[in-house]
Amino acid sequence: MQVSVIGSGAEHEAAAEEIGRLLAERGCVVVTGGLDEVMAAALRGAKAAGGTTLAIVPGELRSEANPWADHVVATGIGHARNLAVVATGDAVIAVGGSWGTLSEIGLAMRLGRPVVILEGGLAVDGVQRAGTPAEAVDAALARLR
Amino acid sequence: MQVSVIGSGAEHEAAAEEIGRLLAERGCVVVTGGLDEVMAAALRGAKAAGGTTLAIVPGELRSEANPWADHVVATGIGHARNLAVVATGDAVIAVGGSWGTLSEIGLAMRLGRPVVILEGGLAVDGVQRAGTPAEAVDAALARLR
Amino acid sequence: MQVSVIGSGAEHEAAAEEIGRLLAERGCVVVTGGLDEVMAAALRGAKAAGGTTLAIVPGELRSEANPWADHVVATGIGHARNLAVVATGDAVIAVGGSWGTLSEIGLAMRLGRPVVILEGGLAVDGVQRAGTPAEAVDAALARLR
Amino acid sequence: MQVSVIGSGAEHEAAAEEIGRLLAERGCVVVTGGLDEVMAAALRGAKAAGGTTLAIVPGELRSEANPWADHVVATGIGHARNLAVVATGDAVIAVGGSWGTLSEIGLAMRLGRPVVILEGGLAVDGVQRAGTPAEAVDAALARLR
Repeated sequence: MQVSVIGSGAEHEAAAEEIGRLLAERGCVVVTGGLDEVMAAALRGAKAAGGTTLAIVPGELRSEANPWADHVVATGIGHARNLAVVATGDAVIAVGGSWGTLSEIGLAMRLGRPVVILEGGLAVDGVQRAGTPAEAVDAALARLR
Repeated sequence: MQVSVIGSGAEHEAAAEEIGRLLAERGCVVVTGGLDEVMAAALRGAKAAGGTTLAIVPGELRSEANPWADHVVATGIGHARNLAVVATGDAVIAVGGSWGTLSEIGLAMRLGRPVVILEGGLAVDGVQRAGTPAEAVDAALARLR
Repeated sequence: MQVSVIGSGAEHEAAAEEIGRLLAERGCVVVTGGLDEVMAAALRGAKAAGGTTLAIVPGELRSEANPWADHVVATGIGHARNLAVVATGDAVIAVGGSWGTLSEIGLAMRLGRPVVILEGGLAVDGVQRAGTPAEAVDAALARLR
Repeated sequence: MQVSVIGSGAEHEAAAEEIGRLLAERGCVVVTGGLDEVMAAALRGAKAAGGTTLAIVPGELRSEANPWADHVVATGIGHARNLAVVATGDAVIAVGGSWGTLSEIGLAMRLGRPVVILEGGLAVDGVQRAGTPAEAVDAALARLR
């Protein structure tokens, strides 16, 4: 199973790290856009739990990714890589976030991916919400069974 | 000036057509994703007013575009063409819409484009709204001065 | 009809300009990647003949395009916009060029577009060649009938 | 180290498999476009040697990848994913191939990636060639030191 964690905001890093850790403990590969804040924290949490991580970065160079990425895909397509980030997850969990995250939620829902927003993140009608990192992971994985 | 009109929903076609017409009357090139409903109606309205229209379609074939497109760009990149649709507009007006439109609003805001949502469309915190097609066009163009 | 002119190299600008002019005289919209050298010269030639021009640029800003573009599509996807450049042409003419041009020839052939290389340009087995700008335009348009 | 293997043609599968195996023995992650023939054989060879494999597919579904992919990135951008395939490799080895492969060689050279073509593959001026799978792997890795 591959689960994408999307979002931004330094104040959401602790939650993202816990989500990364919980996903890795469940045996999921954790996927993010590979840059900083939430994207880094989720991968860091996954690595702390011995998991595998995948970063899908906007630029043409692998070196753009944060140090917790086991494997890096350099797409070279800028913000259009948001599509690849969500398409690559069997499910998507959003933590905090701003406009880029909103675009990813829209694309994920368009593709029919299960999406769960952690409370404290974006307000998007019609998308499932969860109150804690553990509930977000449970909710995302429940929809993959 | 190039203005992108995004959205979907057959019930929003009349509004999209009026927006297309008004934009053309103001001398704007009207840009859409080139498919049906709102994307077709906006171009149809622009053509009815003697305007110029540009369609940016997801597939590899120009023939995918609706018949009101003067010029068609076949991107071949699927939903990732949403980025090109909003990047190509100096401003963006959203009419109705669903998840794809939400992704376009997110990408447009991420790029710093002025975005106006016509009332009756998506609820997105932090994005300007307008009550009528005329007000939407006025609001979008005011932000380009 | 939309015809894409691809290539690079300042020494090929005169040929590209003539190709742009001839395409415009035949009523074709001339499409390029919108930057300098061959991409600029082909659009300049088309405008000199009263034609219509379309630029598909790699970045997120329309202002990246050369001044001879009537309409500009900002794709935001970097070198991946090469796919859009060739998909948007009903036929493709290559003038000079380097690695980016080679990628466009490959993508155009993959999509089944007619491709003609002007002598003096890249050596690619299996792609039609023409000795002069006029012959290149004739050869490209002949394959669209 | 991540090395991308590109190409096509059932007659080149044995060579691709050996290249995948040799790369894995050297500790490289093997990257391909994730579909059949050369793309499958290279990953199969890498897995036979206990290596790690990464597939970057054109569609929106991970299930599109061949069964030898450990991790799959679904880009959703069609042939434009060729850019991601070569950008993701620190070096690129071409085996057999047709127009899509030619586009990848062009993009890889444009990005400045070391590219090695196995003899029997495409003729491209200015790209290093190698006579055997072992020589191709040696040549590619030598350019990463």
